[in-house]
Amino acid sequence: MSNDIVDNIISIAKRRGFFYQSAEIYKPIAGFWDYGPLGVLLKKKIEEEWRRCFIKDEGFFEIEGSNIMPEKVFIASGHVKGFSDPIVQCKKCNSFYRADKLIQEKKGVFVPERTSLEEFDRIIDKENIKCPSCSGELSKTRFFNMMFKLNVGPTEDSEIAYLRPETCQAIFVDFLQVFRAMRAKLPFGIAQIGRSFRNEISPRNALLRQREFTQAELEIFLNPKEKEFPKFEKMKDYKINVLLKGSEKVEALSLEELIENGIVEHELVAYYLGKLQQFLNTLGIPLNSIRFREQEEDEKPFYATYAFDCEIATALGWVEIVANHYRGSYDLSSHSKFSGKDLSIYDEKTKEKLIPHVWEISQGIDRTLFCVMLHAYRIDPQRGWDYFSFSPRIAPYTLGVFPLIARDGLSEKAREVFEMLRKEFDCFYDESGSIGKRYARADEIGVPFCITIDHKTLEDNTVTIRNRDTTEQIRVKISELCDMIRMMK
Amino acid sequence: MSNDIVDNIISIAKRRGFFYQSAEIYKPIAGFWDYGPLGVLLKKKIEEEWRRCFIKDEGFFEIEGSNIMPEKVFIASGHVKGFSDPIVQCKKCNSFYRADKLIQEKKGVFVPERTSLEEFDRIIDKENIKCPSCSGELSKTRFFNMMFKLNVGPTEDSEIAYLRPETCQAIFVDFLQVFRAMRAKLPFGIAQIGRSFRNEISPRNALLRQREFTQAELEIFLNPKEKEFPKFEKMKDYKINVLLKGSEKVEALSLEELIENGIVEHELVAYYLGKLQQFLNTLGIPLNSIRFREQEEDEKPFYATYAFDCEIATALGWVEIVANHYRGSYDLSSHSKFSGKDLSIYDEKTKEKLIPHVWEISQGIDRTLFCVMLHAYRIDPQRGWDYFSFSPRIAPYTLGVFPLIARDGLSEKAREVFEMLRKEFDCFYDESGSIGKRYARADEIGVPFCITIDHKTLEDNTVTIRNRDTTEQIRVKISELCDMIRMMK
Repeated sequence: MSNDIVDNIISIAKRRGFFYQSAEIYKPIAGFWDYGPLGVLLKKKIEEEWRRCFIKDEGFFEIEGSNIMPEKVFIASGHVKGFSDPIVQCKKCNSFYRADKLIQEKKGVFVPERTSLEEFDRIIDKENIKCPSCSGELSKTRFFNMMFKLNVGPTEDSEIAYLRPETCQAIFVDFLQVFRAMRAKLPFGIAQIGRSFRNEISPRNALLRQREFTQAELEIFLNPKEKEFPKFEKMKDYKINVLLKGSEKVEALSLEELIENGIVEHELVAYYLGKLQQFLNTLGIPLNSIRFREQEEDEKPFYATYAFDCEIATALGWVEIVANHYRGSYDLSSHSKFSGKDLSIYDEKTKEKLIPHVWEISQGIDRTLFCVMLHAYRIDPQRGWDYFSFSPRIAPYTLGVFPLIARDGLSEKAREVFEMLRKEFDCFYDESGSIGKRYARADEIGVPFCITIDHKTLEDNTVTIRNRDTTEQIRVKISELCDMIRMMK
Repeated sequence: MSNDIVDNIISIAKRRGFFYQSAEIYKPIAGFWDYGPLGVLLKKKIEEEWRRCFIKDEGFFEIEGSNIMPEKVFIASGHVKGFSDPIVQCKKCNSFYRADKLIQEKKGVFVPERTSLEEFDRIIDKENIKCPSCSGELSKTRFFNMMFKLNVGPTEDSEIAYLRPETCQAIFVDFLQVFRAMRAKLPFGIAQIGRSFRNEISPRNALLRQREFTQAELEIFLNPKEKEFPKFEKMKDYKINVLLKGSEKVEALSLEELIENGIVEHELVAYYLGKLQQFLNTLGIPLNSIRFREQEEDEKPFYATYAFDCEIATALGWVEIVANHYRGSYDLSSHSKFSGKDLSIYDEKTKEKLIPHVWEISQGIDRTLFCVMLHAYRIDPQRGWDYFSFSPRIAPYTLGVFPLIARDGLSEKAREVFEMLRKEFDCFYDESGSIGKRYARADEIGVPFCITIDHKTLEDNTVTIRNRDTTEQIRVKISELCDMIRMMK
């Protein structure tokens, strides 16, 4: 799969209403994308699967916090001081670049996130790096905070707030509130699915690096002394693909091996790494395209003891779609300190008061959706057109309903079947053009099953179901249709 | 119901995890609220009902646009120039007030939205209005734009953007994109459920006036010459409560009467007014607490030919929760003009090119949720505790599962039943405290059905279902439980 195909998918996405740049009829601002009707259906289904897998199945809790939060939250979290990119500006054409990315792209040198401004300047100088677009001289490096700042209230000196750059801070700030209201017991998780905002210097690759995006974050609170986790037992032989730090080879390790080899300390952590791989697999990402890359010492965030980037192989290389961090007690301790509120809780099991540790699963939903599309795309010269092979669980439309021809009473009968089906399934009705053209249009947006109403239907109340992937058709009774689709889905 | 009870509900909402002020462990900023786990469940279910009623049933389309949009969008929409509140500041204590609200509260005089600054100053002067908190002298009135402004990109002179003050602008801006991608035919609707942001001067009444809130908006595009609408026929005898402009009495008028009396021109409009009343009723709002107030000439927005505020009677008076506007071609024409893109479309039915007119249904989801809670609250001295009588369709938890006592193998059996039920329903497990206490806790959060596992269960595999509203119990087989609950829901 080449980058041409990525461009092709972006073009289909626009033409068929998956996603497209925001405010396209004006000059759009880079890094903002809207979801069209098919994109919304796909995105909502991915979110629902995530909710089922990481919240409902686990008996965890979901909150919905404000997008705008007061400055103090981000002073405590470290974002006001530290959530910055090193940037340089071309003195000639005024373009901006991220210094670390520029050095990496130009010279292939990896620059750790915590490099000093002086060090950036030294490398740029030494390697004689110029502006990539006009070869002009570059300014000194400076830090640029990526949060969007706001004034709340009617004057300039009103309250300072920020659009949240990640959804998890509300979880930490609301922690005690949720713990008490839900009478929770360790370990337990609090999740949030919502928007985050980052003033990126160089948004790119469509949904992969946006200035506004959807995160699904789960923070699991645990007692660090409790190394065992009951659910681990059933999953311990499940293998995940791991790229250990310092290594260049992906290994398939069982969850038990992760524990035995001391790679992770808590069975709970191993369990959720396994569950994450299973989740991505149910979305249609093949296991051999998923890996957990353990972060090197100099790339992981300062608050993390250890971290695994869950990455997916795509035509654009390995794409990080889920960050997994062992955050320790950093967040709750820091909010405790800055707010003056004691955020420690009493653990009924060990009879002690403690600030819980946190295992974080932070997934980018838009990135996931884009990777799902990249992996579902099928080139099929024999068929004569390409298609998306979405899993029936997440396909935007589960069904298309077509009368073979738009006369002889077939339209009326097809409408009836359509009205019955759409009470339960996402489906659409189409009677325009040849049946072949309608199959092609349905394939292009990844509809797994097409129902056709023909002359035989009027005689014996049967219809055909066409399978998108095999193009084979079976004939079933209308009265058994709903059960049948439920089974195949 | 008094305001004490409103305060009581807000206190339950916090204690049990429905909603509470955002960033409470810090000094919260007024007008921002977070949803806890129960609030998220309730809100998602209200949104799902809305989606079912106004998108899926109607075959309409949903989009998800960016929260941040470029300045040009809001120049075209009129928000940059006109989305302002008239404000005054106390010269002594520096408090801010909305001039129109201040005059209304102090003097009971209604001040139309489009009053000039000079007129405000004249009334304040004439009526001798002072600062409500310190009696200080007030400043001259000025306009304050309620949009949150942002700079996107790394410099001060970077691109100007705003957080959207309403979700509908993305619908107008994406109109042609959706029309083409979905091969739509007039009339059709595009909806969006998402956040909006307004820098309100005086946020208040919990979820009723926030600075960040969730809207569900549906814009229906129609050919103004097409007065008939096929679905109208079946609904035409349905009556809605209307308060006509200039009148002081609510009348129950059938949808047909709305058309015959020339109150609305299009059957489509009448149909969706009816559908909206039905929708609110399914959420548990009694019909006699719903009215459609036709807006007076001087209060409706300048772009609206006519408008109906859908209001709900509460302890806080009549609360507007849905704005219904006939917006004509204003939005598409204006975006056409400012973007230079032709947004007219070809209507296959009438064989003409036109800019469609728009019927807008704009619902505040948080307000709706708050009104649902106010209406569901039941004071029950006989029972000994109060409860929420939520409709089973939207109750946060559908089921509680309790072992009668936490020994004799009842816990294990109850866990089994719980695991079976939670695959399909939102439910929770509770074995702490007396069964009476557990019923009380479940009632307080409006759980419609409680399942109890007792000693008889171990003998014959039956359990009891307790009805929240009647407190009556029936005994059913575990094998029939799921069907039974599906039926009662």
